[in-house]
Amino acid sequence: MRDPFVVVGGDAAGLSAASKCKREDPDREVIVFEKGQWVSYAHCGMPYFVKGEVDTLDELLSLSPEEIDERGIDLRRGHEVLEVDTEAETIAVDGPDGRFEQPYGDLLIATGAHAVTSPIEGHDLDGVHTMHGLDSAAAVRAHLLDPDEDALADMGGEDFVDRDLVERYGRMDPPETVAIVGGGYVGVEMAEAFVAQDLDVHLFQRGGHLVPPFGESVADVVESELREQGVTLHLGEEVERLAGSEQVDRLVCKSGDALDLDCALVGIGIRPNTGIVEGTPIELGESGAIAVDDYGRTSVAGVCAAGDVAEMRHAVTGEPDWVPLGLTANRAGRAIGQSVAGDSEPVGDIAGTAVLKAFDQECGRTGIVDEKRAREAGFDPVTETITSRSRSGYYPGAAETTVTLVADRDSGRLLGGTIVGTDRAAIRIDILAMALEEDATVADLERADLAYAPPFAPVWDPVLTAAKVLRGQL
Amino acid sequence: MRDPFVVVGGDAAGLSAASKCKREDPDREVIVFEKGQWVSYAHCGMPYFVKGEVDTLDELLSLSPEEIDERGIDLRRGHEVLEVDTEAETIAVDGPDGRFEQPYGDLLIATGAHAVTSPIEGHDLDGVHTMHGLDSAAAVRAHLLDPDEDALADMGGEDFVDRDLVERYGRMDPPETVAIVGGGYVGVEMAEAFVAQDLDVHLFQRGGHLVPPFGESVADVVESELREQGVTLHLGEEVERLAGSEQVDRLVCKSGDALDLDCALVGIGIRPNTGIVEGTPIELGESGAIAVDDYGRTSVAGVCAAGDVAEMRHAVTGEPDWVPLGLTANRAGRAIGQSVAGDSEPVGDIAGTAVLKAFDQECGRTGIVDEKRAREAGFDPVTETITSRSRSGYYPGAAETTVTLVADRDSGRLLGGTIVGTDRAAIRIDILAMALEEDATVADLERADLAYAPPFAPVWDPVLTAAKVLRGQL
Repeated sequence: MRDPFVVVGGDAAGLSAASKCKREDPDREVIVFEKGQWVSYAHCGMPYFVKGEVDTLDELLSLSPEEIDERGIDLRRGHEVLEVDTEAETIAVDGPDGRFEQPYGDLLIATGAHAVTSPIEGHDLDGVHTMHGLDSAAAVRAHLLDPDEDALADMGGEDFVDRDLVERYGRMDPPETVAIVGGGYVGVEMAEAFVAQDLDVHLFQRGGHLVPPFGESVADVVESELREQGVTLHLGEEVERLAGSEQVDRLVCKSGDALDLDCALVGIGIRPNTGIVEGTPIELGESGAIAVDDYGRTSVAGVCAAGDVAEMRHAVTGEPDWVPLGLTANRAGRAIGQSVAGDSEPVGDIAGTAVLKAFDQECGRTGIVDEKRAREAGFDPVTETITSRSRSGYYPGAAETTVTLVADRDSGRLLGGTIVGTDRAAIRIDILAMALEEDATVADLERADLAYAPPFAPVWDPVLTAAKVLRGQL
Repeated sequence: MRDPFVVVGGDAAGLSAASKCKREDPDREVIVFEKGQWVSYAHCGMPYFVKGEVDTLDELLSLSPEEIDERGIDLRRGHEVLEVDTEAETIAVDGPDGRFEQPYGDLLIATGAHAVTSPIEGHDLDGVHTMHGLDSAAAVRAHLLDPDEDALADMGGEDFVDRDLVERYGRMDPPETVAIVGGGYVGVEMAEAFVAQDLDVHLFQRGGHLVPPFGESVADVVESELREQGVTLHLGEEVERLAGSEQVDRLVCKSGDALDLDCALVGIGIRPNTGIVEGTPIELGESGAIAVDDYGRTSVAGVCAAGDVAEMRHAVTGEPDWVPLGLTANRAGRAIGQSVAGDSEPVGDIAGTAVLKAFDQECGRTGIVDEKRAREAGFDPVTETITSRSRSGYYPGAAETTVTLVADRDSGRLLGGTIVGTDRAAIRIDILAMALEEDATVADLERADLAYAPPFAPVWDPVLTAAKVLRGQL
């Protein structure tokens, strides 16, 4: 199909698609509309920018607007797409010069997600942050600086950043006590960042454990680690409201417990930005994200969706799922760009593989590790957890490594797993991710000829030991 | 079958089999004959004992004779098995009280391998070492000590070690210049050990590259690393002889080049200890190791073989191969022990997965990476090498990581791969080992949902990047 390939959203999925399409079909017109100023940036690097390990915002950009231009992509920043008309095959765009209609030949919706802050009352007070988008990261870092430091000059990103926001937070006194609301990825990573900045850090989690997608065996280790690093955990505490006159100064839980503070970070989840498909025939899936097929196509011909706004098929259940992660967005975008250019490429399945640094603990998870979830998907889950060493016991640096594996009793199929430890633990989750991609059984995993050398792994890698024990239970 | 389960050889394969059999069938009589004094020790830990990172020989023992006794295994150290009579189902044993015949019900040959030293003339001079068995490691460490130190007291293992050998080397002056003959695993690991002991280290390799099983892309990095660490490499230099009156003092190459030295370590390979099957109907494979089936059974009923003395089936070629490594021995031994106890268990295939620490570089290899070898096995190999980063570029510690993948052009099947880098590189080889276990294609690998988080991996892990590039060539 000719006419332009129009992409809504200038981050991982959108620009991967635009770049791949242009590379495969250089004559195709490719237009990318981005509501904000930032494009192609590394969400996952933001906590390390606040921590101070990444010096400037610019370092978090994968591509500059100039590089995007060099690829022949027509990037329009500051252009918000308001509506999609799938009949007319046009979108309504609100740009710096007003509203206009843009026809499309192929359309990719890659509008991403937004941070949830409700139902927490007071989330709009000064000093209450989220960690979603580089402006939010810039605001947190400006808040941490002394007012006499020049926040704007020090953090880079001058051409893009919300200067008013940064300057406003730059003028505030740096906080001493921060409450993190939510104990998922963002909460744990930001706890590390705030501890590095010498704040008194309190983390509130509604449920009984941190990092729920990693299951209890990982959560136990992460919780111990955070406490050892000086974070005060408030588990099983639901935050009701944040209070203050203009700037936040108090947090109140449903239990009645309260904390005086001068900064809060809310990380209780994200939701897909599906606003522009409301009222169109483009269907959402059960998760609330846009439903797509194996090629990222929505229910309307010519319209694809990818990244945090779209569902993907789960490799284990075979069902649509919504697990918004970086590689998924990049890969789906790239595949759609290739397909749009004429060479059909599936977007691939996801296994929900994720890794997380919790201070010195490396955590990994993949597949289905929650037994309830496994049963809902029609499996009869069996779970085993083992703890062994990351290296030969006599070799310096051998560290306790805990592996949990879940398998289906009847078929012996591996459904998922988690890992936690301080020595090369996280990257080992990729062994399981590869196994899931191949629908491997626990017996297959147990037989895999994995690496052994004293500095890197014991004779029986912790993953093999876990497989051996789990297979004994099947 | 009743009557004793007799095991020849008290290391990884032998004791894994004995232990598993006893655990599954506690009433079965299990006898292990071991020629020497050492049992169940970690070969791969020896370089680190010489380096000084492992303090005592005892730390390298997986099981003490007492623990073996507690398992109900009848362990007879100092018993050499001389002959097998497969007709009579007996073995001839030379023990401390003389020679005797031992009947067996099931027999496991787990006699391991020995270090090759010929055709190098002068290999029996004082000061010429190998690294095979704890006595050889003890001799090297004793040699490195000042004569006024008590070698025996410092290194442990008093109950087992060859005291005469240790005392003899303990009396010698410590060497200043050492030549390592052979640039494989042992040579590279011992280079690190000798550099740590402040020796002037020269490494001689007959071929043009170190670590041939890892291919050129890894060898290039390893060679640079060794040179940077102060090792003098002599590549393409075949050593003809070691010379000296009683103690070695000179090395002479076929090229005529020579080096004055006071110590040499020969690590030019190992060969299976198949002596006891000579003259029996037990067949050897093409490799010269004992041929076995999927259950580790030799060509003679009731006789199994496992560990460094036996072949195994290669997961990629489906053909017998001889790749003597630690996990293989442990796994095959364990499976045979289980089968002997009545619950048949295959020994599994091998992929030749190996990892190697070369100072700060972590190296890994698995499967078939040599194109000639791949063609001999009936494949049409395509190879790609990429270098990318181990983490997000902006995250501290991101290190160059080089991945080579080999695939079959027609089927797209992954045949093997290598990896080298300083940041969690080696353990990533397990992703490929898992893929080989499942006969995965390069497309499968490219689609795997691998981990991404800035501290651990970039969005596209180096393994995925390599798969992407290789798939583009298929």
